[in-house]
Amino acid sequence: MTGDCAPRTLADLDEDGLLAQTLPRFATSDDVLVGPGDDAALLQVRTGAVIATTDTMVLGRDWLDEWSTGSDVGHKIVVQNVADIAAMGGRCTGLLVTLIADPATPLQWVLDFNAGVDEAATAAKTVVLGGDLSSAPPGVRAVSVTALGELDGVSPVLRSGAQVGDVIAVCGTLGHAAAGLLLLQRDSGDAPEAGPVASDLVLAQRRPRAPYKQGPVAARAGATSMLDVSDGLVRDAGRIARASGVRLDLDVDALAPDIEMLAPAVGPDAARECVLAGGEEHALLATFPPEGVPAGWRTIGSVLPGDGVTLGKVPQTGGGWDHFGARFR
Amino acid sequence: MTGDCAPRTLADLDEDGLLAQTLPRFATSDDVLVGPGDDAALLQVRTGAVIATTDTMVLGRDWLDEWSTGSDVGHKIVVQNVADIAAMGGRCTGLLVTLIADPATPLQWVLDFNAGVDEAATAAKTVVLGGDLSSAPPGVRAVSVTALGELDGVSPVLRSGAQVGDVIAVCGTLGHAAAGLLLLQRDSGDAPEAGPVASDLVLAQRRPRAPYKQGPVAARAGATSMLDVSDGLVRDAGRIARASGVRLDLDVDALAPDIEMLAPAVGPDAARECVLAGGEEHALLATFPPEGVPAGWRTIGSVLPGDGVTLGKVPQTGGGWDHFGARFR
Repeated sequence: MTGDCAPRTLADLDEDGLLAQTLPRFATSDDVLVGPGDDAALLQVRTGAVIATTDTMVLGRDWLDEWSTGSDVGHKIVVQNVADIAAMGGRCTGLLVTLIADPATPLQWVLDFNAGVDEAATAAKTVVLGGDLSSAPPGVRAVSVTALGELDGVSPVLRSGAQVGDVIAVCGTLGHAAAGLLLLQRDSGDAPEAGPVASDLVLAQRRPRAPYKQGPVAARAGATSMLDVSDGLVRDAGRIARASGVRLDLDVDALAPDIEMLAPAVGPDAARECVLAGGEEHALLATFPPEGVPAGWRTIGSVLPGDGVTLGKVPQTGGGWDHFGARFR
Repeated sequence: MTGDCAPRTLADLDEDGLLAQTLPRFATSDDVLVGPGDDAALLQVRTGAVIATTDTMVLGRDWLDEWSTGSDVGHKIVVQNVADIAAMGGRCTGLLVTLIADPATPLQWVLDFNAGVDEAATAAKTVVLGGDLSSAPPGVRAVSVTALGELDGVSPVLRSGAQVGDVIAVCGTLGHAAAGLLLLQRDSGDAPEAGPVASDLVLAQRRPRAPYKQGPVAARAGATSMLDVSDGLVRDAGRIARASGVRLDLDVDALAPDIEMLAPAVGPDAARECVLAGGEEHALLATFPPEGVPAGWRTIGSVLPGDGVTLGKVPQTGGGWDHFGARFR
């Protein structure tokens, strides 16, 4: 680095310099007893147990730089993780953020990524506790977040508690992120003539939103099982069915408005596929006793004896995002 | 997958199948209220706060398949993280394990990796709480661990508490992992004629050991600052100096035996470099009041007014492992 050239890639800085440049002034909270900068962070735990989850995004598999900015990626990796905390009935209290990057990565990308992380953390009322930076071979970039949280006195809502006679309910949209991905793949999402619905769908793909607060609400309302829709409705419902030893029957009429809403943007067949198999949505999917569905949730099916997932009693198989099989995209 | 061909790479299995195959029967503990398999894990916290840290290893940067087995990598990523918990004065209570891998990765590598993780976790008296699997572009493989822990009533030992008049002490070896790496680079580590010292050094590189229990011991003895030697003695001592606003003066005579021990295997100049700048060692480095050094620790210097790191009063700069500058190797 010579003269007045500003650093442009990670290779222009040593690790300490990189941390000094890129560790943004992340928001903090009273619960953070030791924050970033030491061997580890120390986070107060008020209710006797900590929830912990981790999720990763890899360049070229989970995002493309052509479609998502660093800020988008930072936002999305936080949402994915906080949604997993919410899906247990919990509240996120802190994040560890890991960046694995080719030294040729533009510094600006890292600054944008951190800004997206910080913005999404603030929106989720959580904070960055620390993390790790690792260099990687040419072209490689991945981000990974671990989220910690607390239950604030409610019992954790697992996947295994659905009971025959319960109803299935969802909070949040279905298939929007997948429809947004389709529009990006067709190169039609950002076109002005695509209209506001298309641009909302692309935004749902780039910067998904999850109804975090409804996780604890569902837990208090007596949800018997819950998860967030990360790999597709049928696939994720199948996880509840398998863990609970029941059948989840989805209601054709209840899902029709979701499909109709997407059809003008992506076509009717793709709309159906997005609603049933679209991942990365992070809506909350739960089962409740019939009288227990809280406000803000809509009933989309019922829990029956048997196994697997049916749609209007017709068995559904596969679909959704599979990391190693990569069926959906 | 057809006929009687066993799955050979990750691409032969879908994600659920991969998890079923690769999630080994990790050991568990009474503190694990919800283990692997749900949206998140739930870990009991007995003392009001959780320690959290994360560390990553990337194929081609942090390990080579020619030199390290999957089991070695699993072992090492656990040791690195548990050492960070110990360096705060804590005890590790749980791990989240992330694998990012090209679908062409042999399944056997993943099984070996998990076995190494489990073995190292058991040795550290900790457990795997959960994790994440992500696919990656061709040739890419990385592993990341988040470690959680508790302080059991001691105060956290930070990098910032070293006081003028303290002594510097170390628990564990210095430079062995770096010397082992040199031997591997020279292709002489595994040669039978290299002798038992060489093969111990290579083992220290492949499967480092850290004196975890001495972290809480040091905290109880009144350590004023502590970290584990992950990037090199001078570099890591410099972090304590900077955080504490003091100078750390290393004693030439105290380090001479460390250098002498390595010299026959790697030569005298490289031995000195390994001891002063060798990373990945995970010995614990701490400062104590002069009368406070616990059994099992040896004094290697003193804390003086000023800044930076000196060796027999001679200023030392740089050295050690830098992720993005990559000076050492």
